[in-house]
Amino acid sequence: MIIGIDIGGTKANGLLFDPETGAVRGRSLQPSRHRGPELVEMIVAMVSQLRSAEAVSVTAVGLGVAGLATRSGIIRYSPNLPELIEYPLAQEVQRGLDVPVVLSNDATAGAWAEALLGAGRGVADLVFVALGTGIGSGFVVNGQVVLGANGFAGEAGHMVIDRAGPEHHTGQRGPWEYFASGTALGRMGRDAAAAGRFPAGLAAAGSADAITGLHVSRAIEAGDQDAARLLDAFSCEVARGLANLVLILDPSRIIIGGGVVDVGEPLRQGVEQWLSRLLLGGAHRPPVEVVLAELGADAGALGAGLVAAEASG
Amino acid sequence: MIIGIDIGGTKANGLLFDPETGAVRGRSLQPSRHRGPELVEMIVAMVSQLRSAEAVSVTAVGLGVAGLATRSGIIRYSPNLPELIEYPLAQEVQRGLDVPVVLSNDATAGAWAEALLGAGRGVADLVFVALGTGIGSGFVVNGQVVLGANGFAGEAGHMVIDRAGPEHHTGQRGPWEYFASGTALGRMGRDAAAAGRFPAGLAAAGSADAITGLHVSRAIEAGDQDAARLLDAFSCEVARGLANLVLILDPSRIIIGGGVVDVGEPLRQGVEQWLSRLLLGGAHRPPVEVVLAELGADAGALGAGLVAAEASG
Repeated sequence: MIIGIDIGGTKANGLLFDPETGAVRGRSLQPSRHRGPELVEMIVAMVSQLRSAEAVSVTAVGLGVAGLATRSGIIRYSPNLPELIEYPLAQEVQRGLDVPVVLSNDATAGAWAEALLGAGRGVADLVFVALGTGIGSGFVVNGQVVLGANGFAGEAGHMVIDRAGPEHHTGQRGPWEYFASGTALGRMGRDAAAAGRFPAGLAAAGSADAITGLHVSRAIEAGDQDAARLLDAFSCEVARGLANLVLILDPSRIIIGGGVVDVGEPLRQGVEQWLSRLLLGGAHRPPVEVVLAELGADAGALGAGLVAAEASG
Repeated sequence: MIIGIDIGGTKANGLLFDPETGAVRGRSLQPSRHRGPELVEMIVAMVSQLRSAEAVSVTAVGLGVAGLATRSGIIRYSPNLPELIEYPLAQEVQRGLDVPVVLSNDATAGAWAEALLGAGRGVADLVFVALGTGIGSGFVVNGQVVLGANGFAGEAGHMVIDRAGPEHHTGQRGPWEYFASGTALGRMGRDAAAAGRFPAGLAAAGSADAITGLHVSRAIEAGDQDAARLLDAFSCEVARGLANLVLILDPSRIIIGGGVVDVGEPLRQGVEQWLSRLLLGGAHRPPVEVVLAELGADAGALGAGLVAAEASG
């Protein structure tokens, strides 16, 4: 058995599971708003709790975080854990445990989980994107997860696609996630409502300023035509960045995950259509399959565990 | 022994070489402006000629072309061989030969050659870019060449970095190669000369319109200050696209090749400095090494041979 813990900005999702089948044998969900030593203590306690769930031996513990996590277990910078700069998380957790502890990026881990247990089973070359507050991404190439030299691969959300475009909170101009994250979908909804083109959103949120991506998603599900237009524009933005990734990596399948994916099939279809329109040389390429993620909010924890199992085994 | 033939727009560069050491035992350079059957005949003749150079057995023949070359040996589209659309080149050449024939993209092949025999020896995660008429690119991840699902990986020159930017001949707006190819360097020289900011280029070429990347390169070598400013601006454009690739793939080394690389150290240094300035999270990342390619015009032929040796052996 393996333990994977996905440490987000507000909560940590821990799973005890069988790496061969993905069968989950234990769960633990804890608030993650802790400073370094308290976070370490909380993680060690989660591991104990998960281990005690069943009388099985645990062979590895994987930790997943957003941002720059090194192969050697150091959080260099994580937007969700801003106080943990250059923090040797894996090593600190390791002190309290007798099994190998391995750190990885949450979206890279998510890609690996989808490849082995979810929507990417049997696919040797795939791209996974998680559309949420920002855009996380992870890749599988030649049947292997792409960690990169340091463990930092998969930061495609920060890829600049509009060098003269609006300034993002990262300081960059026009990165992909500015246009195609869940946050961007909310901004598109607010802008449309302020211009009188999204009355359903305005009614649901109370004011244009209060509209988030969730209001747009719900309006799409309710069949609102304004929201459908927003989704089309949003799908185009998602596809723009994916077109770059297809040119670079030539995956046969793209898996879309993250919070925005609750919209489901209309998003998948929109992205697939825009991708085939935007992709250079489309006439000479087989179409790239676009599918929805299957593992939902567990992808990060499962993937962190799977990366750990591989790295330590 | 292996044979690799890099089929460019005007000439084909064929090499007989030892895949372990890269030692070249025979060479053949032929004009490549042929239609399908004549090109096949020419390639078969080149192979015969190279084979007769030494009494050694050849175990694989690799062919490299620009553009979309499938793993199964079909040229889907090559800008240098515009008549060969959906042409099964490897299969056609195979008819005339008794050793495996494998087709690959020239820049992907170049990346693999630099990884095994050139500036990337011992590096598991690297990016290779060839700055010429356009931008070719190829990647090594986890110590393996990245071919992609179809064989189309490495088309980073077409990555859009300025979605509202100028239209390129591909029909895209603002792809990287519009700004950072050898062609772009020539355009920067012409624009500067037309504005009175590159008198040395004007004098060398006769008119602003006649300036090419080569005039800029030569003026740089001659120590011209205007050309040095152009090189700085050009290095920034090269680094912009590389910054995206580093975010995506996290290589520890970037290898710059192609015709423009004749400028040498000033280009390498400019790109390295701009990359560290432009790269998000630079304070938390080890600097990415930027080095010049070592294999020059032979990279494509060597790489095509090496890919063939691996695929067939």
